[in-house]
Amino acid sequence: MYNSIICRYNEIATKGNNRSMFENMLMRNMRTLIKPDIPEILLRKMRGRIYIYKDGFTVFTEEEKEMITERLKRVFGLDSFSFCMEGPREFDALMQMIRDEVVPLFEEQFAKGNSVVKFRTRARRSDHTFPMCSRDIEIEVATMLEKIVGEDHLKVDLTDPDISIGVEIRENNSSVFLETEKAAGGLPVGSNAAVLGLLSGGIDSPVACVMAMQRGCRMDYLTFHSYPYTPMESVEKVLRISQIVNRWQPHGTLFACNLSEIQKLIRDNCDPRCRTVLYRRMMMRIASMLCRKRKLSAIVTGEAVGQVASQTVENMGVINQTVPDLILRPLCGMDKNETIIRARNIGTFETSIEPMIDSCTVFAPDSPVLHAKLPQIEYEESRIPDLQAALQAAYDDIDIVTNDENGMKLTKLSGKKDYHENNDNQ
Amino acid sequence: MYNSIICRYNEIATKGNNRSMFENMLMRNMRTLIKPDIPEILLRKMRGRIYIYKDGFTVFTEEEKEMITERLKRVFGLDSFSFCMEGPREFDALMQMIRDEVVPLFEEQFAKGNSVVKFRTRARRSDHTFPMCSRDIEIEVATMLEKIVGEDHLKVDLTDPDISIGVEIRENNSSVFLETEKAAGGLPVGSNAAVLGLLSGGIDSPVACVMAMQRGCRMDYLTFHSYPYTPMESVEKVLRISQIVNRWQPHGTLFACNLSEIQKLIRDNCDPRCRTVLYRRMMMRIASMLCRKRKLSAIVTGEAVGQVASQTVENMGVINQTVPDLILRPLCGMDKNETIIRARNIGTFETSIEPMIDSCTVFAPDSPVLHAKLPQIEYEESRIPDLQAALQAAYDDIDIVTNDENGMKLTKLSGKKDYHENNDNQ
Repeated sequence: MYNSIICRYNEIATKGNNRSMFENMLMRNMRTLIKPDIPEILLRKMRGRIYIYKDGFTVFTEEEKEMITERLKRVFGLDSFSFCMEGPREFDALMQMIRDEVVPLFEEQFAKGNSVVKFRTRARRSDHTFPMCSRDIEIEVATMLEKIVGEDHLKVDLTDPDISIGVEIRENNSSVFLETEKAAGGLPVGSNAAVLGLLSGGIDSPVACVMAMQRGCRMDYLTFHSYPYTPMESVEKVLRISQIVNRWQPHGTLFACNLSEIQKLIRDNCDPRCRTVLYRRMMMRIASMLCRKRKLSAIVTGEAVGQVASQTVENMGVINQTVPDLILRPLCGMDKNETIIRARNIGTFETSIEPMIDSCTVFAPDSPVLHAKLPQIEYEESRIPDLQAALQAAYDDIDIVTNDENGMKLTKLSGKKDYHENNDNQ
Repeated sequence: MYNSIICRYNEIATKGNNRSMFENMLMRNMRTLIKPDIPEILLRKMRGRIYIYKDGFTVFTEEEKEMITERLKRVFGLDSFSFCMEGPREFDALMQMIRDEVVPLFEEQFAKGNSVVKFRTRARRSDHTFPMCSRDIEIEVATMLEKIVGEDHLKVDLTDPDISIGVEIRENNSSVFLETEKAAGGLPVGSNAAVLGLLSGGIDSPVACVMAMQRGCRMDYLTFHSYPYTPMESVEKVLRISQIVNRWQPHGTLFACNLSEIQKLIRDNCDPRCRTVLYRRMMMRIASMLCRKRKLSAIVTGEAVGQVASQTVENMGVINQTVPDLILRPLCGMDKNETIIRARNIGTFETSIEPMIDSCTVFAPDSPVLHAKLPQIEYEESRIPDLQAALQAAYDDIDIVTNDENGMKLTKLSGKKDYHENNDNQ
């Protein structure tokens, strides 16, 4: 019988002057996730907590509870939350509420053959005009329970209780809750600037994207393919990955760019050993163009130092110098095993390991350069006739990737003037 | 009675052509850590393992075992290791070794009042000319143990044994081991380019440095102070942190730069709200100069998006554009709680939280700029008279920080020509 949810946050509470900006962003994100399915939802901020109700103060159905739990767990900025019974703050009403909601749980435990039930009460009184202190409330709860279920069947246990009773007394009402769910932590998506995630079909980049969101960055995604050298299914795979990653933020658009014409120019004009580094420099240039267009303030990649040939420090340095944009690499210092664990938690791992040809491996050399030098790479680029035009053509050809009941849908970015204008106003 | 150590690696094993480079680097790092205390140490690479012995094949003392365990746990690239008994590979000799070393352990368990001891045997035969397969060896070990301690007192348990017996058969010898220690994983320090870690007295930067080392980067450190506005004790604190961090790599030098003259120029000439961003841009410029001098290929910082005012995406972008150097930010996507857990594991947390005035907070403004724009910041910098000269003066005044029995010792970088030359030949 839950009619309210108490939501707690942590890192936001350390923010000074602009704390309320963070709180409002968090509330907006929570509302966006729940309101489409429960239009009568209301959120209220009070003394370092956010409370969720339904208009009319009706009880959440079991189905609603499950849906909300699943979604709130993926809200960055939120630390934990508890479904609770909320009622008047008068002592008798509070005790009645505990009796109605908590005593049946003890009876369940006895029915299971448990003759002594371990429990604890944690009371919190944010309204100090309430005549009892937290400790008094905790004692009153224990006394009442002893009367009802019998002293011999109860044991206070603060560290490993069977039943944990939370009580909150506020100015106008009080709450009782039994369980606390852990949420995603970090900062609310949107509290920092929007960024562009380079999303491939691999294990790493989705993890990097979710880590950037955890620090408050809303994001769009850009993927590269090499059609007809890679199948369009590779884009469809990235679309599915982006949909999983999108569950951690209100909205993110997937863009797909065909790199094959540029890759052919590189194949035909440059030292084969430099191909991978050159591909990645072209990707950075196109990403930078998209960032300017979409007002995105950084590029996020899944690069980890030393993981593959293109990711030596020297090669990363040469790729880094292609564009002035800030490049965030959340995995740069992470062990591969740790990245895999994170990918499993996010839910992208199973999709990422589906076999698929990668755009980076098209025309890939047998022995790539390990320690590229900028002058060498710039010389190779100077051998490509009209590189700027080729980059502009690839950029102009970028697709917005969506899907509907008929499957994946591609719409040209360049033809969708209205689309941007709408989105820029977000 | 251990006379040998089996060392295992994981991510290195996935490397193709240059795998032996990684293996040799790993062996060199292991040797560097152990040889000063045990000069008779020998390392040998064989079939995807590294074996450690003492010359003459003598037994490791308990003291040596403890010291080696503590050090190998901090070797990046190493995944796990086991102290073992090594002897001839003949079957009878192997069985004798197991009898001598393992049976006393069962007796210990019985003495503790354990009437049935759970055990498992894991055999690995890399020499396939050995007449028995792994499974046969495991059965033989079980049969022998049953005969000695009695069938009723033994139980095979593969998932949660009291005693786990490891057996390895190789071309010329065999090993028996009982325990496996987890090591640090990642890639051997030195297998990637050397980098410069910006080390402050805070919680984050030491964690970022160790994460860069985990990806194979050897590193030197640079710290900034503002003497006389910050006490020299702040440098001494960073020295102690660097000594803890240095336990994860063969060697790293700490450099200290006094930023106070530049900070005064910024205070006297620029918009106060821009001070923090301007300080950090000056730090990047000096770091970049030191990188060129010391042939270091990237700058490592402890920045995390959104953590403090200077770390909004926009401010990080403006700081990023100061120098062309690759800037690695291993914590950029990490939750503060996670960073704290890592700092505790590394052993720097307790030192980091000692109260100390930070160079960044000298003349710090009440309301710093949150979304700096490059033209605005460049305009502020243009108001500083002769900035280049001030940067060069700060750079020329950099100290190398060491310590001896008399405490912290400062030596001018600029006066130590020999010092660099020696180090450049490393």
